[in-house]
Amino acid sequence: MAGSKRLQTRGVCEEKVLTSLAEKFEEASRKVDALIDKIVSADREPKLLYEASRHLIEAGGKRLRPFLTLKSCEVVGGHVGNALPVAAAVELLHTFTLIHDDIMDRDRQRRGRQTVHVKWGVPIAITAGDLLFAKVYESILHYTDLEQVPPHRLLKALDIITNAAIAICEGQANDMMFEEKETISEEEYFKMIGGKTASLLKAAAQTGAIVGGGTNLQVKHVGDFAFYSGLAFQIVDDILGLTADEKALGKTVGSDIREGKRTLIISNALSTADREQRNLILSALGNRKASTDQIRRVTGIIVELGSIDYAFKKAKTLGEEAKQQLSIFPESPAKTSLLEFNDYLRVRRH
Amino acid sequence: MAGSKRLQTRGVCEEKVLTSLAEKFEEASRKVDALIDKIVSADREPKLLYEASRHLIEAGGKRLRPFLTLKSCEVVGGHVGNALPVAAAVELLHTFTLIHDDIMDRDRQRRGRQTVHVKWGVPIAITAGDLLFAKVYESILHYTDLEQVPPHRLLKALDIITNAAIAICEGQANDMMFEEKETISEEEYFKMIGGKTASLLKAAAQTGAIVGGGTNLQVKHVGDFAFYSGLAFQIVDDILGLTADEKALGKTVGSDIREGKRTLIISNALSTADREQRNLILSALGNRKASTDQIRRVTGIIVELGSIDYAFKKAKTLGEEAKQQLSIFPESPAKTSLLEFNDYLRVRRH
Repeated sequence: MAGSKRLQTRGVCEEKVLTSLAEKFEEASRKVDALIDKIVSADREPKLLYEASRHLIEAGGKRLRPFLTLKSCEVVGGHVGNALPVAAAVELLHTFTLIHDDIMDRDRQRRGRQTVHVKWGVPIAITAGDLLFAKVYESILHYTDLEQVPPHRLLKALDIITNAAIAICEGQANDMMFEEKETISEEEYFKMIGGKTASLLKAAAQTGAIVGGGTNLQVKHVGDFAFYSGLAFQIVDDILGLTADEKALGKTVGSDIREGKRTLIISNALSTADREQRNLILSALGNRKASTDQIRRVTGIIVELGSIDYAFKKAKTLGEEAKQQLSIFPESPAKTSLLEFNDYLRVRRH
Repeated sequence: MAGSKRLQTRGVCEEKVLTSLAEKFEEASRKVDALIDKIVSADREPKLLYEASRHLIEAGGKRLRPFLTLKSCEVVGGHVGNALPVAAAVELLHTFTLIHDDIMDRDRQRRGRQTVHVKWGVPIAITAGDLLFAKVYESILHYTDLEQVPPHRLLKALDIITNAAIAICEGQANDMMFEEKETISEEEYFKMIGGKTASLLKAAAQTGAIVGGGTNLQVKHVGDFAFYSGLAFQIVDDILGLTADEKALGKTVGSDIREGKRTLIISNALSTADREQRNLILSALGNRKASTDQIRRVTGIIVELGSIDYAFKKAKTLGEEAKQQLSIFPESPAKTSLLEFNDYLRVRRH
């Protein structure tokens, strides 16, 4: 159970990273949340729609993406205030995808709460997601100070956000199509999570650097940093989906297996399993009625096969590749934050 | 049966308007469709998602909104080529809302075809809608010639499109909430269709005038023209939903009653009906199992109560108010087209 143990045994250094970053996340989150609270105001009509749209935002979440935006603005020497509308937009885009994903995946819990469609029904949940998608653009178009951020930079930021949204939709569709295949290759996996997860982290960082006045080279590097970090983040997310503490995670452990998600872990396990193990894994994969015991047994096999260790190593390599992208930047508190952020992705518990 | 007869008895003049406009719609539609075909290209991956996203676009549709955009650009003296990306964006936004609306309303047919969620399932339909929403912005951001349209005008156009998208979501939520009320007032009805329908027509016209270089006053007037036309359009749509030929309409007649839609006609009928009539109407309203006979009987009562005539008169008044908005523009072929467009809304058969 090496992979699982690794998650529970932490050094002093890891704890320090977690504490220091938690404070920084909170600081970034306060400013961004205040803006989001204005954009998706509880006072707006129809009340029901705005309540549903605010539900997941109010439930918490780590605000990783706005943090990336703000720090990427700072790392190119920009004024963090100019990046707030883009940071809020990125979080709104993320929340919109969560609401729609939960409908499609039939997930009942998120961030320790009922999902939006469980609480308000599918029609309101679809509309709440759509509303937040529109609010992505409202945030950037209404709240950016055009005296500080020239129009051509704003148009570039909008373009990047739009491309990320398209990549997310394409990644989501790939994800659904892969669920019907017995196995997927590593290449297919990375294409999928590149679209579904890493593209938004990349956009979060790039838009921050753009409104911060970064050069094309800086924007490229901070974007690649975020993209590789995003791939590592998704791999760790998949690991946590199998091994984390349910309460900390805020959703059911093993639901990825029940939903038949093709993760790197599953892809690796299926390619190394013997016939019996393979059949056991496949009998639980995509089986919404799989029992907790069955899930536990399959998880045991996956750990024994070394697939979790394998995934951890991949995440580590990607994390290092990400960090190298930042070598073009001089030392600064923002750069330190980004490097810590990258470490955080691999030591987090949820 | 005055209302129903009115739809079937046409003068030479009405027929002429229909023919002349059909040709103009087709001309506008060719250019816009070519651009949409590029933006939502059949060659893009994942094929399944792009197929689903193109489904309703390929099924036809009148392209009223892009027509409004192009003519509004021309009426302020702009070059129609500059408005094509915005015109395509407006049609994409409309199509996105149709796909999501059909899921929410559980409609099975649209434009004579299966709806997207019936053909591909709800998850792909949600994603296809989301993709088209993102493509709205891609169209404007990638295809507008920035040497012809200055950035501040482009930002303004994006802002208007975004506000319309927000109004549509709010209108959709109101629509759903009203379905749970026994009656709604005329004021509530107009607020709802203002958001759901007229706001996008207004945005279509305003963005056309903006990229065409119109003054604030011109943008306001052409926007108000489109808004009042949009209200009239929705009222006529509601009438057609009760009285049209099913084949021409491309969807089931009476589905608005079965879905419990609170239209102006229903609102008027319920407020003038006696107790027995009221009970008969309410027994069919929102009753998905109402028989064809029951729908026919209820439609008969509604016609007898004069509610269809009432709705026609309202549509006519709004149409006239719309036309007055164009009095600030000198005579031109574009102005003639807009005036004909307004007439068309009341004489169309589907």
